[in-house]
Amino acid sequence: MRVLLVGAGGVGTAVTRIAARRDFLTHITVADYDLSRAETAVAALGEHGDRFSARRLDASDEEAVRRVLVEERCDVLLNATDPRFVMPLFRASLAAGTHYLDMAMSLSSPHTTRPYESCGVKLGDGQFELSGQWERSGRLALVGMGVEPGLSDVFARYAADELFDEIEEIGVRDGANLTVEGYDFAPSFSIWTTIEECLNPPVVYEKERGWFTTAPFSEPEVFDFPEGIGPVECVNVEHEEVLLIPRWVDARRVTFKYGLGDDFIAKLKVLHELGLDSTAEVTVPGRSGPVQVSPRDVVAACLPDPATLGDRMSGKTCAGTWVKGVKDGAAREVYLYHVVDNQWSMGEYGSQAVVWQTAVNPVVALELIAGGVWTGSGVLGPEALPPRPFLDLLTKYGAPWGLREED
Amino acid sequence: MRVLLVGAGGVGTAVTRIAARRDFLTHITVADYDLSRAETAVAALGEHGDRFSARRLDASDEEAVRRVLVEERCDVLLNATDPRFVMPLFRASLAAGTHYLDMAMSLSSPHTTRPYESCGVKLGDGQFELSGQWERSGRLALVGMGVEPGLSDVFARYAADELFDEIEEIGVRDGANLTVEGYDFAPSFSIWTTIEECLNPPVVYEKERGWFTTAPFSEPEVFDFPEGIGPVECVNVEHEEVLLIPRWVDARRVTFKYGLGDDFIAKLKVLHELGLDSTAEVTVPGRSGPVQVSPRDVVAACLPDPATLGDRMSGKTCAGTWVKGVKDGAAREVYLYHVVDNQWSMGEYGSQAVVWQTAVNPVVALELIAGGVWTGSGVLGPEALPPRPFLDLLTKYGAPWGLREED
Repeated sequence: MRVLLVGAGGVGTAVTRIAARRDFLTHITVADYDLSRAETAVAALGEHGDRFSARRLDASDEEAVRRVLVEERCDVLLNATDPRFVMPLFRASLAAGTHYLDMAMSLSSPHTTRPYESCGVKLGDGQFELSGQWERSGRLALVGMGVEPGLSDVFARYAADELFDEIEEIGVRDGANLTVEGYDFAPSFSIWTTIEECLNPPVVYEKERGWFTTAPFSEPEVFDFPEGIGPVECVNVEHEEVLLIPRWVDARRVTFKYGLGDDFIAKLKVLHELGLDSTAEVTVPGRSGPVQVSPRDVVAACLPDPATLGDRMSGKTCAGTWVKGVKDGAAREVYLYHVVDNQWSMGEYGSQAVVWQTAVNPVVALELIAGGVWTGSGVLGPEALPPRPFLDLLTKYGAPWGLREED
Repeated sequence: MRVLLVGAGGVGTAVTRIAARRDFLTHITVADYDLSRAETAVAALGEHGDRFSARRLDASDEEAVRRVLVEERCDVLLNATDPRFVMPLFRASLAAGTHYLDMAMSLSSPHTTRPYESCGVKLGDGQFELSGQWERSGRLALVGMGVEPGLSDVFARYAADELFDEIEEIGVRDGANLTVEGYDFAPSFSIWTTIEECLNPPVVYEKERGWFTTAPFSEPEVFDFPEGIGPVECVNVEHEEVLLIPRWVDARRVTFKYGLGDDFIAKLKVLHELGLDSTAEVTVPGRSGPVQVSPRDVVAACLPDPATLGDRMSGKTCAGTWVKGVKDGAAREVYLYHVVDNQWSMGEYGSQAVVWQTAVNPVVALELIAGGVWTGSGVLGPEALPPRPFLDLLTKYGAPWGLREED
């Protein structure tokens, strides 16, 4: 299998380190807008980097991406850029006749008059619109195939197939106890994306009502995370699972709650109240006259780059899917989860926990596709495919998952 | 008296409206970096503007300012710019041989190793260094002559002269109940200056110890403000009064506490934790490549301009000086204060309460200087001069002050 990996940031770099240990890959072209980032990722693989090459590529230039896919004779495009580049990469892949994987879906835009009640353009709508073309091409666009969305969706399908007869609610729950030495505040994931997820109207699915939205930070609950992480305050945020799971799994309600913690929630609220979350440009003094900048970019520039903080970070991150329903006539509640200890991922891969956890899942998926275990055509979520082979292979990558029966 | 008013922002514009009603002024040249702002301020005076003219002037260009002072045959420079321009204007005035007034003093810089214990460069140090030159020139540099510092210092001197035999503590206390329709968060004063005041290490004076600093937001207390404003949470902030009052008034302790309220304090803390209060440039994407901007300028650009919010504002602002000590052998405690109702200042002058309250005091001081009631040479604070004539004249401007005996 020949792969075009677009994006050599934190997650893309971790993908190269995981992929370098797997034989199923014939070649990976690592492409980034900043060639030096791609080259650094490949150089870091040392003697294990012989199947990798680096090149410069502008992810927003659809035609350039299509040409590289053809030139490099790629079977699949793996998108590890930020969600602004989903659509050009997705279309380039369709045009080139390759498979496509991403870890975040095309962006939403709020309902113009009732943003906190009704959906406007939903996450992934832009991609599902082209579903017919993907089906006709015979190629697979496997969307939302990171950890969340991704593994969390696989868990949902696994619960439906093997653990429940009937499902009342599926709630993805994400929490961590990561701290960064020397920083009072240092988000462990891209602040741009975190703001996008948290300040957009959160989406909820109910069978009778369909998809709808609420106000940001709604329905706070304290969820007790496993393996020593403990209780963390979680709130509704906009996330792909809520849009994906109901398309293939029967459940009365689907939610996503992010364990941001009180302090982070308070900070995000302040950014919003002051308009600093905005991507709309403001005019400020520059060195040679007024310049236009996006406040959210300035917030990101003031914070340390989370991909570079692994050495100073300690703690664990947990992604998982809580499911409530009925099995054999009795009520049942489980939490299926995946925990990564930063000390382990740094020692083993030199990647911090959150980016490593995101990166391992698309590599597992590629291996299942390369081996013909996962097949299909059209735009599919991870829950559209058989979960057991995925979960078994993930364990073989040294990243075991867990199941906790809730009392 | 001929005046060069530098700065036609909110306070400068309010100065023109107040000054236009007083006969003692022969001519005021209104100067601003942005000529249109100066012209707008003069044009708004209508038939009362015949003694005013507008011109363009860069407040950072010391030699240009000196030339204008000479050309316009000014007796005094009134500085209504932000504190970054204090030193060039102060030096230009000294060079031109005119008197000088400002409402904020030269900036501080924190102690390099013990910022929250010891003073580094204090507010006004840059100005007091030139005190000898001012004395020799026979001209008066009256510094910190707004409302706070300014009227608050006059109150301190008045208390020492007429209300107390011995003073234990002088604590300037500032609070408001202003709200702005249509905004969750809209500071009523320049956010750039507010951040500067609140996030610099607060300075405290004690007779035995001299000046020292504490951590930001230290010693929170709830102070009950008069005329219906009520209780507001106040914390120590860096302010000129603490540096000025002990030079001329005998007191065991001097503090300044700002009634920011819980919510504003929380927001400022978040700005600080995220590094968004910083004036050091960060690099962010611009329309044609990376640009360097100051995060604090971006915060200011995201918020509405406080000088333009008067129409939507309601409530009152209070500036005042709380004094505790002994009179005739008995313990005494008083709060000397000045309240402005936004509805009154908008109706009477078209200026919002906070900027009007700042602007009225230097005009009163100019009238006392023009009439020979206030005289002196060197760098003096308002508490160096007789308080009673000032307080009496302030009342004649339609802005009475009050005294509350504390039980």
